[in-house]
Amino acid sequence: MGVSTEDPTEDHTEDHTEGRMTAFDEAIAVKPSGGRRYQVRFDERFAIVAQGGAVPAAMNGGVMLAMVLRAVLDESPLPYPVATSAHFLRVPRLEPAEVEVTWLKQGRTAATARAALVQDGQAVLDTTVTTGNLPDGPPGDDERNGELTWTGEPPKLPPIEECVNLGPWPGTVGADGTAGYAAHVDLRMDPSTTGWRRADPGGVPEMRGYFGLREERDPDAYLLALAVDSLPPVVFGLGAAGWAPTVELTWYMRAVPVAGPLQVAARCRHVGGGWFDEEAEVWDAAGRLVAQSRQLARVGRSSRRRPEQQPG
Amino acid sequence: MGVSTEDPTEDHTEDHTEGRMTAFDEAIAVKPSGGRRYQVRFDERFAIVAQGGAVPAAMNGGVMLAMVLRAVLDESPLPYPVATSAHFLRVPRLEPAEVEVTWLKQGRTAATARAALVQDGQAVLDTTVTTGNLPDGPPGDDERNGELTWTGEPPKLPPIEECVNLGPWPGTVGADGTAGYAAHVDLRMDPSTTGWRRADPGGVPEMRGYFGLREERDPDAYLLALAVDSLPPVVFGLGAAGWAPTVELTWYMRAVPVAGPLQVAARCRHVGGGWFDEEAEVWDAAGRLVAQSRQLARVGRSSRRRPEQQPG
Repeated sequence: MGVSTEDPTEDHTEDHTEGRMTAFDEAIAVKPSGGRRYQVRFDERFAIVAQGGAVPAAMNGGVMLAMVLRAVLDESPLPYPVATSAHFLRVPRLEPAEVEVTWLKQGRTAATARAALVQDGQAVLDTTVTTGNLPDGPPGDDERNGELTWTGEPPKLPPIEECVNLGPWPGTVGADGTAGYAAHVDLRMDPSTTGWRRADPGGVPEMRGYFGLREERDPDAYLLALAVDSLPPVVFGLGAAGWAPTVELTWYMRAVPVAGPLQVAARCRHVGGGWFDEEAEVWDAAGRLVAQSRQLARVGRSSRRRPEQQPG
Repeated sequence: MGVSTEDPTEDHTEDHTEGRMTAFDEAIAVKPSGGRRYQVRFDERFAIVAQGGAVPAAMNGGVMLAMVLRAVLDESPLPYPVATSAHFLRVPRLEPAEVEVTWLKQGRTAATARAALVQDGQAVLDTTVTTGNLPDGPPGDDERNGELTWTGEPPKLPPIEECVNLGPWPGTVGADGTAGYAAHVDLRMDPSTTGWRRADPGGVPEMRGYFGLREERDPDAYLLALAVDSLPPVVFGLGAAGWAPTVELTWYMRAVPVAGPLQVAARCRHVGGGWFDEEAEVWDAAGRLVAQSRQLARVGRSSRRRPEQQPG
């Protein structure tokens, strides 16, 4: 959880990468500037690129969450972000910003901090993070310790080799070829959830796939923060298109993931009044539920229009 | 959404009750004290009473949420709490407290405030609330307006007359007969989720039932805040017992409910490391999904012990 006092672009992560720092770790670097403030900068490599335009439309929300978590975990008495709730307030510019951390409680089982990502004196993202301990031993440890354990059915994904390598998907590539976020992640989608790519959405708001970075990097709390909102919006399965801005996202870390690709399964329960919810689960390569999220988002402007019906 | 400047025990709600104020509306009353601060008091009628003890162990979390929402909606430019995230920090005493509201954004589609419930200078509950507009017309209005709409399968409950009238349930009645929260709500549970009352839990962490107050009162945002955490903890279905303190709860209001009993269905996806999640949906009498919640809570001390195995 250590954070250096050096330049935020320098390597100061734990040893995920055996010395080499990934673009992701560079993008979520924070630099303490005193008084529980941390300098950050938004990295265009993880920006969301608007279809048909070279100018990044927004930062990937997961990268902003991971950035905030780096600052919170820097001073947390407990090691894992068990519950993070985040309200997305404004679209940041790709310029410097600050994370401001305020501790509300530091208990034995749980510690809670507020952390705001601030640019030009305005909050871009407001979060509250509760940290705690989590199972980090082999699956089954809990049960052997006599603790109550129970897990629901895991998602059913086809083998990874039968999945669709999404690449920078339609809608994420700018007119000049810039791809941002979508070019840095490795998404292998369950083909039954990718009909929208051929303008033939399945009619069900679900997305499932294997998630990792294109660079080699083991999953941890930061990568889970990215994973919970890594798939294309579930409403693409209903024929919606375009950027679907997240308004609120809460995610729980449930166990420490093992190395290997993550499985992410997302569903929706209701779309109406311009809002939709998206619930995602992340399972690790050992078959453990390691993270859960739910978000409330706005349906993109081009809702009810299938890609082939879009003007231009 | 008006809040009077009079005594918090006086009637200042909208006309839910045709003149008569319910115990619930009294319990969630707030009194502006200037500078976006509101005086509140915790009402023992909605306290959680520990089994075998007369002293209330804690306040019902939903009542605390509703109290905070009264203060937030008092000044919100938009009418409904579409996304409320809450971290429960400390167990309050049944003494006066204050809600402090800070606006972070007031936009056209969404406005966001932080609101903390503070007692003796320490935050008891820290929330962030995003308000917005929601469908309030008859079901189907959205679709007629050409908006994207979709809803998943509703929960399957037996008819209300086949359900179990829970009454003040085991574990919620103090040694002197005090029942607090459980005596003020009317819960009619799906019998397939009540085996734990006979020390025969079903082995599945699910709870389903019809929810209302014992007093006549139509559902609104405040009652939904109570409804999302109204059922006994889902882990009772796995044989756990005892108070299961909520650490974080986020809920979304999705539509304005019509009059009539609410249906609440809760499930869990994972129990481990002393933590469990509980996801609830609330459907109104017109068959609309009106609220969704997810919480992270601690498994009670008496986990893995069925009621008959409890000492004493």
